[in-house]
Parts: sequence; structure tokens; C-alpha cells
Amino acid sequence: MAELTHMIDSEVFLAFSTYATIVVLKMMLMSPMTGYFRITRKAFANQEDTSLASSTGDKKKLVRVDPDVERVRRCHQNDLENIIPFVVIGLLYTLTGPDLSTALLHFRVFVGSRLFHTVAYILPLPQPSRAVTFLIGLVTTSSMASRVLMTALYL
Amino acid sequence: MAELTHMIDSEVFLAFSTYATIVVLKMMLMSPMTGYFRITRKAFANQEDTSLASSTGDKKKLVRVDPDVERVRRCHQNDLENIIPFVVIGLLYTLTGPDLSTALLHFRVFVGSRLFHTVAYILPLPQPSRAVTFLIGLVTTSSMASRVLMTALYL
Amino acid sequence: MAELTHMIDSEVFLAFSTYATIVVLKMMLMSPMTGYFRITRKAFANQEDTSLASSTGDKKKLVRVDPDVERVRRCHQNDLENIIPFVVIGLLYTLTGPDLSTALLHFRVFVGSRLFHTVAYILPLPQPSRAVTFLIGLVTTSSMASRVLMTALYL
Repeated sequence: MAELTHMIDSEVFLAFSTYATIVVLKMMLMSPMTGYFRITRKAFANQEDTSLASSTGDKKKLVRVDPDVERVRRCHQNDLENIIPFVVIGLLYTLTGPDLSTALLHFRVFVGSRLFHTVAYILPLPQPSRAVTFLIGLVTTSSMASRVLMTALYL
Repeated sequence: MAELTHMIDSEVFLAFSTYATIVVLKMMLMSPMTGYFRITRKAFANQEDTSLASSTGDKKKLVRVDPDVERVRRCHQNDLENIIPFVVIGLLYTLTGPDLSTALLHFRVFVGSRLFHTVAYILPLPQPSRAVTFLIGLVTTSSMASRVLMTALYL
Repeated sequence: MAELTHMIDSEVFLAFSTYATIVVLKMMLMSPMTGYFRITRKAFANQEDTSLASSTGDKKKLVRVDPDVERVRRCHQNDLENIIPFVVIGLLYTLTGPDLSTALLHFRVFVGSRLFHTVAYILPLPQPSRAVTFLIGLVTTSSMASRVLMTALYL
């Protein structure tokens, strides 16, 4: 375990672990939020789920699409499409041995942009606020990817 | 490669590799299952895919939504939303050097809950069986995340 | 950091980092491509996004589903369902210490199959071209998974 201990003692790796965990936990929160909206809006995807609502009316009508539920689901999908690439490329980036301050800048900008993206999507805020937060995240991950390719390129 | 050999010799890492591979393979199985339902239900998403069906009738009608296909796709989506976070946080958790027995408990409970989640979704079983399996997985991943943050916190 | 330096010096790990980054960047490109189609086809998912179009007409009509946008989104979803498992299992496979030539074969076949899958999906090419590229990727990832399980099995 000596090597693992050394890896986990690298400050860049500790920072990556912290920010990756925070942003993945944020993504995971979208599932209970979807469930909350499905129950309060009484809009379910499966017939068997309608038993989770307290309604006593016609349960077949509860299998329906609700705009608030769909908004949360699109936000969750956008997280999957952006946070997972950040985690994958961020891990490889961490292993290229970047400066701690440069790495922290990347991690903080990405996680901040995704937190603000969620707020901009759920409220919602007027565009281009959401588009800008999305692009900041994309550019941050691309910047880390370019360092991985410049350091590790082996085709 | 000495360090890699040491890492792969850690029992917690071997266990993580095993359970992560099993649960990712389970997730990957949802793709062929979707294909199977699309062909047997003759319900495709793309016009060009209708050539995969043996039907000789009007192929335009085969581009349609089928409830069984959608159920498998929702199960696949739920896997993406839960299994990927488990793999990411599970890898970081493994690197924090947890006890083997505690780590095995987390990995086994998570993988078991997701296997049962798939059965509960596809059959389907009455609620709250699927909701419970989903929540068990979420709590397991959150428990690993809390250890990562307590061990590695570096903001 | 000595161990990290050794890991990043392993040729298999360098190759994995390169191919994983390339294929994840390809997946990330689907987001701007979706945005491009949404703006040119004037088909948005959110009311607030219609301000991104230059149209002066009734903006409520711009929240609609467009077949070209949906095609790009299905391609993106298929990437998520296949490229993420490749990255996870490919990382564990890399740590099992495979031959460089065998590893390169897996990485190149997978990345090539996914590049061709995107072309086959977006143009689109007649089936079974897309089905074949999808299956090649699935078999490649499964082959790496079988080595991980044979090398690391610990239940």
C-alpha cells in the first residue's frame, strides 16, 4: 500500500479527489430532486410508481410528462455529459503532475461553473447565463485534456 | 511497473476492480436488451434501423415508441446515473486505504442493490421495491464519498 | 510523486491516457453539435433558450422536437452508454499489466469503432454499419473486462 499512500498524499491528487467527489455528489442530488418533483407534481414514468403518490384518484392519469420534472432531468443529463468527462480527464490530468495552483484553478473553475449551471437551469435564469456556465466547464475540461495529450501522447 | 503491480496486489483494489467490472458489465447488458426489445416489439428510433426487422409492411410505422423499450431505456439511464458515480467515488475510496471488510461490505451492498434494482425495474416488481434498491445504492455511494472527503479534504 | 511518475511512464498507461482522452473529447463534441443543430433548426428544449435564436417570430413555437437534433442526442447518449464503460474498464485493464501490443490493439479498435459509429449515426449510413461499429466497441470492452476479472477476481 506504500504507493497508494504516496499517491493519496500528493496535494494535487487530494484536491482532485475532493472536487471530483463534491461535483459527483452534486450530480447524484439530481436523482432525489427528480423524485421530489415527480411526487409533488404527481407525474410518474412508470405505472407502478403511482402508488408512491398519496392521490386517491385515477392512477393511470399520473403516468404523464411534467415540465418541471423534465427540466430537472435535462439538468441531470447535462451533468452526466459534462461532469463524467471532467472526472475522467481530471484524473489523467492529475497524473501528469501539474502545478498545484494551476490544478486548483481548473478544479475550482469547473466545480463552480457546474454549481452555477444547476442554479441557472433550475430557477431558471435568463440566457446566456446557463450557456456561459456550460461553456466555462467545457473549456476547463478541454484545457486539462490538452495537457494530458501534450504530456502523454502515445498513439 | 512495480508500483502498478503493488496497487493491483492490494486486496481492496482487487475487490474494487472485480465489483466495478461486474456492475459496469451489467450496465452494458442493457444495450443489447434494448436492441432485443426494439427488434421483437418492432419499435425503432431511426428510419434506417427498420431494415433490421424482418417485417415486410410499411417501415415508416416501425419508427415508434414502445412501452417495453422505454422501460429498459429508463433502467439503463438509472444505471448511468448511479453506477458511474459508484465507480468514480469507489476508486477514490479505495485509494483512501479502507479496511478490507468495510470496503467489501460497501461494494457487495452496492452491486447487490443494483442487480435487484434491474430485476425490480424490468419485471416490474411493485413499489417500493425499486425505490428501496435505488436508495440503498445511493446511501452506499454517499457513505464512501463521506470517507473520501474526511480523508482527502483539500479545498 | 515518484510512483505517479512511474505510472505515467508506463507505455500502456500513456497509450490508455491518449486514447481515453481522444474518445472522451469526441463524446464532448456532441454537446456543441447539439447546440449547433438546435440553433440552425430553431428547436429548443427550454423557453429561455429561444432568446439564443435570431428569430423575431413567436418564440413559444421554438420549444419543439426536431429530428436532426434528436439524432445527435441519441448518438451522444450511445456514446455515454459505451465510452464511459470503456474508460472505466480500460483503466482497470491497464493496471493488470497487459502486453503493449495487445493493449494498443484494444484501444485502437475501440476508438476507431466509435469514430465510425458517430459518422454512421449522423450521416446516416445504411444499417448494419452502425450496428456493427456498436458491436465491435462492445466486444472490445468485454474482452478487456474478461482480462480484469481473470487477473483481479476477488469476490
